[in-house]
Amino acid sequence: MNPPRFDALCIGNAIVDVLSRTEDDFLLAQDLHKGTMHLIDEARAKSLYDAMGPAIEASGGSAGNTAAGIASLGGNAAFFGKVADDTFGGIYAHDMHAIGVHFETPRLTGGLATASSMILITPDGERTMNTYLGAAQLLSPDDIDPAVVSAAAITYMEGYLWDPPLAKEAFRHAATIAHEAGRQVSLTLSDPFCVDRFRAEFLGLIRDGTVDILFANDSELRSLYETANLDAALRALAADCPLAAVTVGVNGAIVVSGDGVSRVDATPVENVADLTGAGDLFASGFLFGIARDMDPIDAARLGTLAAAEVIGHIGPRPVTSLRDLAREAGFDI
Amino acid sequence: MNPPRFDALCIGNAIVDVLSRTEDDFLLAQDLHKGTMHLIDEARAKSLYDAMGPAIEASGGSAGNTAAGIASLGGNAAFFGKVADDTFGGIYAHDMHAIGVHFETPRLTGGLATASSMILITPDGERTMNTYLGAAQLLSPDDIDPAVVSAAAITYMEGYLWDPPLAKEAFRHAATIAHEAGRQVSLTLSDPFCVDRFRAEFLGLIRDGTVDILFANDSELRSLYETANLDAALRALAADCPLAAVTVGVNGAIVVSGDGVSRVDATPVENVADLTGAGDLFASGFLFGIARDMDPIDAARLGTLAAAEVIGHIGPRPVTSLRDLAREAGFDI
Repeated sequence: MNPPRFDALCIGNAIVDVLSRTEDDFLLAQDLHKGTMHLIDEARAKSLYDAMGPAIEASGGSAGNTAAGIASLGGNAAFFGKVADDTFGGIYAHDMHAIGVHFETPRLTGGLATASSMILITPDGERTMNTYLGAAQLLSPDDIDPAVVSAAAITYMEGYLWDPPLAKEAFRHAATIAHEAGRQVSLTLSDPFCVDRFRAEFLGLIRDGTVDILFANDSELRSLYETANLDAALRALAADCPLAAVTVGVNGAIVVSGDGVSRVDATPVENVADLTGAGDLFASGFLFGIARDMDPIDAARLGTLAAAEVIGHIGPRPVTSLRDLAREAGFDI
Repeated sequence: MNPPRFDALCIGNAIVDVLSRTEDDFLLAQDLHKGTMHLIDEARAKSLYDAMGPAIEASGGSAGNTAAGIASLGGNAAFFGKVADDTFGGIYAHDMHAIGVHFETPRLTGGLATASSMILITPDGERTMNTYLGAAQLLSPDDIDPAVVSAAAITYMEGYLWDPPLAKEAFRHAATIAHEAGRQVSLTLSDPFCVDRFRAEFLGLIRDGTVDILFANDSELRSLYETANLDAALRALAADCPLAAVTVGVNGAIVVSGDGVSRVDATPVENVADLTGAGDLFASGFLFGIARDMDPIDAARLGTLAAAEVIGHIGPRPVTSLRDLAREAGFDI
């Protein structure tokens, strides 16, 4: 097996974020479930945009943020995701290329617009997402370049890909190619309601060996195993999956592996501005670490460091070099 | 004379900012003069965008930022500026309406794109701007709604309007209407190189009584009077203009009025993230204060408070309610 050209290939919905600060009252008035992702259609996107406050725009999408984080750590990352040939699509491609991520998925022409997500940030830093999938849902098996999959140490995919039917097929196709090439496959559960929509399929992927490395946060994991008890869910996970990293907010992360269950503290953050991208950036650090043969505990520490950077400012991707931050923190990367 | 419906009407180039962190070396390599605004054409915009790092997008433009700041202070603001009927134009209009700014300038259809400015932020927080004017340069006298001008206590305009010939005419037209309605007219000098391009005309506007309230920073004022000596420039200004506010970076601001020259300290900022919008937000506070019959010194203090908010984060407009911040600081607004 050749040494991998990419530390990770990330596959997900390519989305431009429209980020706005708001008050909790607005979420109530709009009937939104705080901290989760809502899929919306074009008409709802228009009415919500008209009602919400001023915003900034930034390239986002869970797996895209993870790819950008790996690049910021000095890693080699690739991304597959579908944008349209429009203004947001141009911004998305620019932001990927500018940070050195390999991103060559053909852009959609003459059809749906590039996906956007209206992300409402409450004073506690929590974010509530409202996603119009647009072109992103047309990611198909044809967009899976097998040469890139085979060249990536880890192929990492969003649970959100289960929402668009074609993207789900792309996911399965990529997983098959990765395993045939002797590489690893990783899944993030994305969102507790996403888990609720696809619980049986996600459990199937984990139990049939499709997933080598699982990411979840505590509410996603509890949703997966339909239990309020995190410890019970962790025990079930340990039996189901060879390696997993579970983020637990201010309490950091939990690594579940053959060596047992280990806890890693969160990196302290003085002012939490915006939790958007926290889980995605944790995954950047963990994937980069595993791809570089770090101990999983150290990889999780790198993950919490990356997450701490992104929640200190508005926006879903790092604005400071994660490699510089990691080196200052004593990581030899 | 009726009480004004608007504290201020702001007129300027309507621009979406494309903000990116960079190193000083990149400015050197791109032959850019740090801290100033460069006008660029479409081809240069493309080549610079291809060369620069990942960015975020946010509605900007000097006078637009000032209007947003006045609204954030709880004031009534209007804005005239030209955007196109495209994605950035839609974002620009949304951001104005969402914060309560009156903005009804007809959008350009079928022609140039909405203006954008690539703003490069160096580690010292300084910003270097590269503006493609696009649709903004087609603001014309026809876009000056006399009812709005007459209803604004102060009509405030950018020196940058002098670059597009039609916009300059719009400026003169608005100033005439404002004075006929018994209102005040204000000008910001915008940029030292802008002053260099239009020094004689700006001095003419100040000396012939078109400008009642002048804004400048120290380098713009020294450029206006072609002197390296700020005190000499301030003395010349005192003889030329009834009221002026001169920002002097970390040293705060200087108010020049019939009562003499007074200095106001800057509001301390722990971490300067991005100086974009500092002068624009200072103008928000000062204009709001003057429109509400505050003492000019207090108005300048409100200006430094507004400027401090915007330089603490990336982006040219406030992300926290300026009214709340001002009330916490003891302002009765």
